[in-house]
Amino acid sequence: MTTEQAPRSRRRGAALEKAILEAVLAELDDQGYRALTVEAVAARASASKASIYRRWPTKPQLVLAAVRHTIPDRVGTPDQGSLRADLLHLVSTMAAGFRGPLGEAMRGVVGDALGGGDHLGALSAGTSLAAVTAVVERAVARGEVSPERLVRPRLEAGVAYLRHQVLMDRLDDALVTEIVDDVMLPLLLD
Amino acid sequence: MTTEQAPRSRRRGAALEKAILEAVLAELDDQGYRALTVEAVAARASASKASIYRRWPTKPQLVLAAVRHTIPDRVGTPDQGSLRADLLHLVSTMAAGFRGPLGEAMRGVVGDALGGGDHLGALSAGTSLAAVTAVVERAVARGEVSPERLVRPRLEAGVAYLRHQVLMDRLDDALVTEIVDDVMLPLLLD
Repeated sequence: MTTEQAPRSRRRGAALEKAILEAVLAELDDQGYRALTVEAVAARASASKASIYRRWPTKPQLVLAAVRHTIPDRVGTPDQGSLRADLLHLVSTMAAGFRGPLGEAMRGVVGDALGGGDHLGALSAGTSLAAVTAVVERAVARGEVSPERLVRPRLEAGVAYLRHQVLMDRLDDALVTEIVDDVMLPLLLD
Repeated sequence: MTTEQAPRSRRRGAALEKAILEAVLAELDDQGYRALTVEAVAARASASKASIYRRWPTKPQLVLAAVRHTIPDRVGTPDQGSLRADLLHLVSTMAAGFRGPLGEAMRGVVGDALGGGDHLGALSAGTSLAAVTAVVERAVARGEVSPERLVRPRLEAGVAYLRHQVLMDRLDDALVTEIVDDVMLPLLLD
């Protein structure tokens, strides 16, 4: 087919984006947020700086895209059989993501965005909220949760508390079960 | 008494601090967080820059102290007769404080702190948590709330959600009742 004969040496679309975002994650691991440069990402991904700036004009946007790139696995939370088990799995996966370089990256992104006079609304694509909602909808289908509990504050408070504690650098081992047992479940179950 | 003969023209201690912090609040009103300078605060308070830097070495620390200076009134929430009424009063007072210049100041403080590589743990003296705890303890004394609900995540999640929404710039009119009715009360009442 003709389209198959397009030059293969130049990656495009999803493949190039994936290479760039994985280079960002690798740089975050190696260098941390503050020392990360677009030059280093471009070199690691064998991509041009222009190809990066065209998609993500600022460092916070680039890093946030890379953090989000790690989230799809979380949305596809396997069914653990109960709301509590599903939420423990989801929140511990999110918390693990926020430990170490990704937590530092999130604090850096938030700091740069607010320091630049932006608010964070634009940064929040609601990926975490969507993941929680998917898990709670499964519990509604199971008959564990009544449908009127599907209101934003009840779905969002636990994730907001997790993010708040990440920003405060208070992500200790007890936090995941505290969020699930003392915040999420009481807001969702009768 | 000898100590009474110390020069009176030089304000000290609480009086000087109050003058400085009120000058910060006035500057936040007039100029906003980003344009605020220690010079302007010193001029408005008729204080030396050294007297300010000695107490609050950085702009975020100075502004945060001024924001906290507005909180004691909140802690002294008058008894409204029920937990729901007390919480509505407290959260709406906090939300009102975060609208306008103080909300912008909080976003600026958080941005500068995170941008400087700090985390926010040091910024959080728990003033809001103390205010919520005081109101809930009153409800425990009234017999409205059982004492085992006095655990940190249940007390803190509502305030954390409020702060999260302030950072996201999502402080809309419905938020106060949502926080009280869909987050705080379900976490505290049976």
